[in-house]
Amino acid sequence: MATSEARGRHFQDELEHLKARLLEMGGLAEEQVRLAVKALVHRDRDLIDRVLTGDDPLNALHIELDNRCFTLLALYQPMAVDLRAIVAAVKINTDLERVGDLAINIAEAAQRYVAHPPVKKLIDIPRMANIAQGMLRDALDAFVRRDTGLAQNVLNEDDALDSLKTQIFRELLTYMLADPSTIEPALDLILVSRHLERIGDHATNIAEDVIFMVSARDVRHHAADGKS
Amino acid sequence: MATSEARGRHFQDELEHLKARLLEMGGLAEEQVRLAVKALVHRDRDLIDRVLTGDDPLNALHIELDNRCFTLLALYQPMAVDLRAIVAAVKINTDLERVGDLAINIAEAAQRYVAHPPVKKLIDIPRMANIAQGMLRDALDAFVRRDTGLAQNVLNEDDALDSLKTQIFRELLTYMLADPSTIEPALDLILVSRHLERIGDHATNIAEDVIFMVSARDVRHHAADGKS
Repeated sequence: MATSEARGRHFQDELEHLKARLLEMGGLAEEQVRLAVKALVHRDRDLIDRVLTGDDPLNALHIELDNRCFTLLALYQPMAVDLRAIVAAVKINTDLERVGDLAINIAEAAQRYVAHPPVKKLIDIPRMANIAQGMLRDALDAFVRRDTGLAQNVLNEDDALDSLKTQIFRELLTYMLADPSTIEPALDLILVSRHLERIGDHATNIAEDVIFMVSARDVRHHAADGKS
Repeated sequence: MATSEARGRHFQDELEHLKARLLEMGGLAEEQVRLAVKALVHRDRDLIDRVLTGDDPLNALHIELDNRCFTLLALYQPMAVDLRAIVAAVKINTDLERVGDLAINIAEAAQRYVAHPPVKKLIDIPRMANIAQGMLRDALDAFVRRDTGLAQNVLNEDDALDSLKTQIFRELLTYMLADPSTIEPALDLILVSRHLERIGDHATNIAEDVIFMVSARDVRHHAADGKS
């Protein structure tokens, strides 16, 4: 009994450590997104380069976390909510790695964008970035605190991102139609808005995993038709 | 001993069943992609609608497979290669669901595209679709047969997809610059090529999971810089 108790305590310690590392990874991914958008807005080539070469720590954490989850499953064979937490961590880890990739994609678009004169003052793209970063932060907080209310908030935020994306598209299309020299750079801004939308999708995935983890209730594929 | 053997046999049966269902899901996802691109090429509005409303079976399988993986982990507490197979299945399930979402995204772009006169005869987009579908099929075969050689082939195919995407972009940009009335429909073709590239990325993810599952060797984040 004492052994099993010690084992349980040990598992909970490891689980806390896993969560802390996931939060750390989320912080790194969010920071890469923030810097990529900042570099785009300020046309800062040095910062663009920093983002482009800055995903090693994220990638290392991605592998480390996968291994941690795997080891926890193999050593402790957790049940019920603990098992759901580890399976959720496996998925969240994947989502965060993709967010890191999307930050790189944004920096790549920024690199092309700054080779042209600016199309317009960027207002809505930083706004999208703020929303997406907030969703990511909240989704991870919801995971750590097992807070389904907060996770539900994240799901509700997705519409704001979607309507900003549509607005950005319409506005840039007007520029492109009026002046063909804006076509190439405007295209990159459209791509950036899509990347930010996908970052929001990853936050949504995480929020859905949290709801499933806490309540074993599956909220996917019900109101999911709004996704684009 | 007999009980443990029966348990082992039972687990292997369940694992085979899980793999069969994953293959089925892969087949559905691939078919959605194939139909979406066919609908785009033939400007077939009925087929576009069929794709747009055709992801219920995929979404149902997504939830079923997640539950199967979860149940297998909880009931059998598998070790080593079996544990890695289940964890891989959880990830592959997510990848296939996203492929289904991307097929919807392609159909949405097709829906907008057919509202305009055609920009050009579509040659390279069906070519990209063929490559991406083949990668997906091979990646799933590699999973079921635990074939790392085949998985490695999938990783190598990614470059072909990437260079077609670049070619499509350059060609469409020429059209857009020459004739502003092509800007809107050409944009949708560019988006379709990006969606197809991402389907290839998902196949690549699956192939990497297969290599990890079989050899416990992590091939991610080494030559991963080519991703866009």
